[in-house]
Amino acid sequence: VSLGYADPAGHPALRGLLGDMVARSRGVPVDDGELLVTRGSQMALYLAARTILSPGDVVAVEAWGYRPAWEALRLAGATLVPVPVDAGGISVDALSELTKTRKVRAIYVTPHHQYPTTALLSQPRRLALLALARAERIAILEDDYDHEFHYDGRPVLPLASADTRGNVIYLGTLSKIFAPGLRMGFAIAPRKVIERMTALRILVDRQGDHVVEAAMAELIEDGELERHARRMRRIYATRRETLVEALDKHLSGIATYKVPQGGMAIWTHTPGIDVEAWSERARERGVYIHTAKRFAFDGRARPYLRLGFAAESEARIRTAIERLAEAVPRG
Amino acid sequence: VSLGYADPAGHPALRGLLGDMVARSRGVPVDDGELLVTRGSQMALYLAARTILSPGDVVAVEAWGYRPAWEALRLAGATLVPVPVDAGGISVDALSELTKTRKVRAIYVTPHHQYPTTALLSQPRRLALLALARAERIAILEDDYDHEFHYDGRPVLPLASADTRGNVIYLGTLSKIFAPGLRMGFAIAPRKVIERMTALRILVDRQGDHVVEAAMAELIEDGELERHARRMRRIYATRRETLVEALDKHLSGIATYKVPQGGMAIWTHTPGIDVEAWSERARERGVYIHTAKRFAFDGRARPYLRLGFAAESEARIRTAIERLAEAVPRG
Repeated sequence: VSLGYADPAGHPALRGLLGDMVARSRGVPVDDGELLVTRGSQMALYLAARTILSPGDVVAVEAWGYRPAWEALRLAGATLVPVPVDAGGISVDALSELTKTRKVRAIYVTPHHQYPTTALLSQPRRLALLALARAERIAILEDDYDHEFHYDGRPVLPLASADTRGNVIYLGTLSKIFAPGLRMGFAIAPRKVIERMTALRILVDRQGDHVVEAAMAELIEDGELERHARRMRRIYATRRETLVEALDKHLSGIATYKVPQGGMAIWTHTPGIDVEAWSERARERGVYIHTAKRFAFDGRARPYLRLGFAAESEARIRTAIERLAEAVPRG
Repeated sequence: VSLGYADPAGHPALRGLLGDMVARSRGVPVDDGELLVTRGSQMALYLAARTILSPGDVVAVEAWGYRPAWEALRLAGATLVPVPVDAGGISVDALSELTKTRKVRAIYVTPHHQYPTTALLSQPRRLALLALARAERIAILEDDYDHEFHYDGRPVLPLASADTRGNVIYLGTLSKIFAPGLRMGFAIAPRKVIERMTALRILVDRQGDHVVEAAMAELIEDGELERHARRMRRIYATRRETLVEALDKHLSGIATYKVPQGGMAIWTHTPGIDVEAWSERARERGVYIHTAKRFAFDGRARPYLRLGFAAESEARIRTAIERLAEAVPRG
């Protein structure tokens, strides 16, 4: 491993192994020059946005979503337009309507486990989205931020696996598998896009940590990455189960939810409850929950909670839901 | 050291120690919240530019310079205007003239060892530049990229040490001391600027490597950083001597130069010689040199070379100059 200036597209061994892994396990074909290693998927999104967008370009986003991603798009000059999300993921019909009145340059989506609702984009919508993107020349920024964390059956293949026209820029991360502090992500796109993203990357931070990238390449080559992901998946599946049991025991009749097939949280509907007051009362009891407001494009409060289960032990999940039940505001 | 999400402004211990170090050894006072740790000075410059500039803002740059820095400024929307450089560094008179016809928002300068000419910005020009910046409200982006590598006497204090109005954004790096592959730099600026740079940094790559940052904090605390810099300085000073001797032996009458007080290269003038042809003939003999064209804002060829000495052993420096002499094109 060299400590000098090195390839800003990432350590060559890591690029090769990541490309093989994504091709093999996610059905996304990756040719030479089509993959860029970045410091986390946030950087991958920023570089992609900056590469394909011009100031004022319209980018459709899910009406529930991840604010730092929206900010990265805005930083690249995008005008964002929200599109509704339901249990089947983003509404492609609504997106299609939007394209009739405005030129949409790109769409930013989380089809695997929609963030924050964890909804899986349905198969008919996937096909419709790809067709619409082809017809209207819309770039799809597909953020597959927790591909590995699918518990029921096999992960659904990304949109990128069915993209025949180079419409999709696929964004992945390894930070979720190891540690958020390990900033490592990647982008897969047509070679020309990757070239321009790489040129931009040089200006932003010159290159990644090749020492860490080489170490990651070894973990992939040894199969350690996959073993680790399997272990985490088992642990998270158990925690999801624990959260489901706790919700049924302590909050039945108050919170309704669909058990998510994957992801790291359960999206719960709590009709008629002032969730902001609830969150405040829970905080006083040492329980921190995220309400819908945090994720809403319009910033409005609505009776939904995102309850994370990945980062907590089973015992702590049980205690947290018990306390949360005690904190329900009686209105 | 946590592996989770962490302070995007950098590891707190490292920020504190860097601030102390810069205050003590460079005379730049650093209060809480005025220092941001970045991945190299390239990122620091990009974040600073993006924070203080609006699209179309005029930024003055040295007419010889570092292209990736210019590109980072352009990426932030700047319109660049070159200002001549001579043996006393950037011409503040020319800058002053420029301000009479155009509103200059910022200036990007390398006052310590001008890149690529290694000229030290003269004391009268320093005072004139600070006064002009105050009067015309010009932000100074001071890139002190090789502060430690000053061989004759003590390093000259940065402009930032004499900045009483918060006009200077000071950019430093640790990559030059350890290894280019270790991307670590920092910016010092008024707190409000640092806050905005930090908010932007979250969007670009979320946070730095806190593990590496914590390790760096220990190296600073143990005095290892300073010891290492001293060792490197001795080695580089000897290499500079070797290059001077080799130039005098093999290229006297062809190349003239001033021995630089610091930096990592000697800027040589080779009047009447086609340096592009020379460079090509040298390359055929395995010697790689950088001609003026590479650093010129207008991209024009001129008879100057930047001969680096820091990265090569004494034996290799001698051989390289010998071969370079053999390769002089006879026109």
